[in-house]
Amino acid sequence: MADQIVRIGIVGFGTIGSGVAKLIVENADSIAARAGLRLELACVVDTDTTSERPVKLPDGILTDDLNRLLNDDTIKIGVETVGGTDIAKDIQLKMLEAGKDVVTANKALLAEHGNELYRAAHKNGRCIAFEASCAGGIPIVSAIRTGLTANNINAMYGIVNGTCNYILSNMTSKNEDFCEALAQAQEKGYAEADPTLDISGGDSAHKLAILGSIAFGCEIALEDIFVEGIEGISKDDIRYGTEMGYCLKLLAIGQKDAHNRISLRVHPCFIARENSLARVEGPFNAVSIFGSAVGQVMYYGRGAGMMPTASAVVADIIDVALGNSATTFRQLNLRPRNETAPFIEKIDNIVSRFYIRIMCRDKPGVIAQWSKVLADNQISISGAIQHEDTGPDNTVPVVIATHPTMQKNITVALEGMERLDVIGGKPVCIRIVDIPEDKD
Amino acid sequence: MADQIVRIGIVGFGTIGSGVAKLIVENADSIAARAGLRLELACVVDTDTTSERPVKLPDGILTDDLNRLLNDDTIKIGVETVGGTDIAKDIQLKMLEAGKDVVTANKALLAEHGNELYRAAHKNGRCIAFEASCAGGIPIVSAIRTGLTANNINAMYGIVNGTCNYILSNMTSKNEDFCEALAQAQEKGYAEADPTLDISGGDSAHKLAILGSIAFGCEIALEDIFVEGIEGISKDDIRYGTEMGYCLKLLAIGQKDAHNRISLRVHPCFIARENSLARVEGPFNAVSIFGSAVGQVMYYGRGAGMMPTASAVVADIIDVALGNSATTFRQLNLRPRNETAPFIEKIDNIVSRFYIRIMCRDKPGVIAQWSKVLADNQISISGAIQHEDTGPDNTVPVVIATHPTMQKNITVALEGMERLDVIGGKPVCIRIVDIPEDKD
Repeated sequence: MADQIVRIGIVGFGTIGSGVAKLIVENADSIAARAGLRLELACVVDTDTTSERPVKLPDGILTDDLNRLLNDDTIKIGVETVGGTDIAKDIQLKMLEAGKDVVTANKALLAEHGNELYRAAHKNGRCIAFEASCAGGIPIVSAIRTGLTANNINAMYGIVNGTCNYILSNMTSKNEDFCEALAQAQEKGYAEADPTLDISGGDSAHKLAILGSIAFGCEIALEDIFVEGIEGISKDDIRYGTEMGYCLKLLAIGQKDAHNRISLRVHPCFIARENSLARVEGPFNAVSIFGSAVGQVMYYGRGAGMMPTASAVVADIIDVALGNSATTFRQLNLRPRNETAPFIEKIDNIVSRFYIRIMCRDKPGVIAQWSKVLADNQISISGAIQHEDTGPDNTVPVVIATHPTMQKNITVALEGMERLDVIGGKPVCIRIVDIPEDKD
Repeated sequence: MADQIVRIGIVGFGTIGSGVAKLIVENADSIAARAGLRLELACVVDTDTTSERPVKLPDGILTDDLNRLLNDDTIKIGVETVGGTDIAKDIQLKMLEAGKDVVTANKALLAEHGNELYRAAHKNGRCIAFEASCAGGIPIVSAIRTGLTANNINAMYGIVNGTCNYILSNMTSKNEDFCEALAQAQEKGYAEADPTLDISGGDSAHKLAILGSIAFGCEIALEDIFVEGIEGISKDDIRYGTEMGYCLKLLAIGQKDAHNRISLRVHPCFIARENSLARVEGPFNAVSIFGSAVGQVMYYGRGAGMMPTASAVVADIIDVALGNSATTFRQLNLRPRNETAPFIEKIDNIVSRFYIRIMCRDKPGVIAQWSKVLADNQISISGAIQHEDTGPDNTVPVVIATHPTMQKNITVALEGMERLDVIGGKPVCIRIVDIPEDKD
């Protein structure tokens, strides 16, 4: 029996687009054997039609004319790998209006304009598949959407940005400071020339918006997510945290409590060194999910890169071609925000443990003063170490770990400590997150 | 808009059946919110209609009459949670003939009679969904089948039996011997009263047959799989291996080489302590997969137990109800064995490193004798330790790690060493498996 032929157009012939084209051109036979579908590259659209790419396209495939894709009714699936939010949105909308299903890895676009795009897809009876938008090669979107449908998802903790994880891993294992580690990451190709979106936590927030909306079944806006990046992290704090048994990671955290209050945040976290996420190193991603029936599950793999991302894009293409994506997209059931707005907990009300570093002048009564500020704010101390390293103006670092307390108490306490004469500079504060470990 | 109602019959009201009934009865609302389908339990069939179960069924649902399920045309999906191979097969065939799609967690049945059942399903235009058959709550079947379709899968390494992993974890961390650890596992409910199927590696082989057939796209028979259990493992060898930097795990391994030769085996393995699978402890399961595009991915979670398994069964029920399972089942494309038999590599030809322990009499020239046997068989030694522990007849344990060599060379060498006067008893031999770690 001849395999069904599925014709595909790709818009954007950069890294991801090249990877997708490469898989389709070079692996058509083995994909046909596995999926019973023959993928056929109809066209690749890019303004740059001359640069060398890591794949050799058949003649006549590369074009700078988007209309060739839009007007060709034999092309059922349009892959958008342009990136960014403006032009990419316009392209996706045009493809949907032209009756194409859309496959994309563009998390920024979905996080910012997903609702508009989803509605356009529904209106045109089309679907948008976006497995590749989160955690690259790890099939995390379908795991949550399909594999764990029977569960109420209580929490997820994800390392979803390989750039930040690479930087923090190197700061930890090689005692590099932030700038050295960032330069390393750029040299290795794990960080962009302008790394802002990654190191600010913005990229992780994009992914959390997408994963959170699927996991918790509601529209999530980027503004719902508290975001703090890793730019301010000093290697000293990583070292002090390590001494206390912790490992520093940038986590994307989504939680839902018993009253359906959702909290969403991206920030650097100290987590227990024994936790499975602490062992995720270099450019890898991992997501731990806690489901009401399944308990803890964890997915691990490459979160970015040409071929891992292309692997997820092509999986989506096949899923769309088989018709499965259309079904799951319809069932996705993202109710418009104005209809049933989720209750999003403010960061001020989130309970956490905290790591605080203050630089204390070496005088009698210093401990009495800073500990009083904490006590006045009902903050209880679980551990403290005064290190003998010397800081500016003959200060010494004092590192404090707190018991769980509300963010707003810490905020007041930090201001109080900063005002003390015996403390130099601004206190450093990093959240300690106790990720539950599902054990026997 | 009213949700589509999907009526379900369950056959087998044991642990898994109860979990599935519990999720359907207690979580119907939240499942409807997520999947847009309302699951309705039409009947539960079991010969025992009186025992207490951990779920309260609505009146009139429990019956001992299978025909009530078979003859009710409003029931579209039949869940078989009876277990075993004889009666269960008969039940599945009857359900397929009665026009029901089948959902099952029964790995033994699928591994032994899958081909017959799949053919019966195709003949009746029905599908069989079996996510829950492998690694319980971890959506590993759909990950391979859907998430990684664009990849040629080169290898997979799985801890897929929680009983064995629990026993080996306790032997390692608590220095328990096999019988103590087994008794512990039984007490905790992680091992059956008759643990044979688990500890012999048989259950892992069932899962490898299923996962291998999906990953490598060919029918795999149980006879294709080399199986060795953990019954003979001594805590001394675990300790000596630990000293050399290894951790002992029962792995299910499937590999495909560049010439499409497939090898499939289940046996205890020493793996590097730093490997991610070495960190999987207690009753947990994990599978590392190496795909041509995606690189390494790993999935981790609970491989058994009432609710994790029920979570996977209900995910399958939803997938069947949405029509997605039918599509993937058709595409599964398991060609009958007589048409395109895969080339299965014999265990004799598999190259591995080996851990060997021999009990040597304390005489001059002992090392010369056993090392000559290895040399005569072209086996090169990567490490050796003579321990001062004393064994029977004043022997001392000598532990040897080899460089990669073929199984058949080792087999001959072991026989040769056993014949030496200076060696007491039978040499112990455990494979050392170097699982690749995908790093930056």
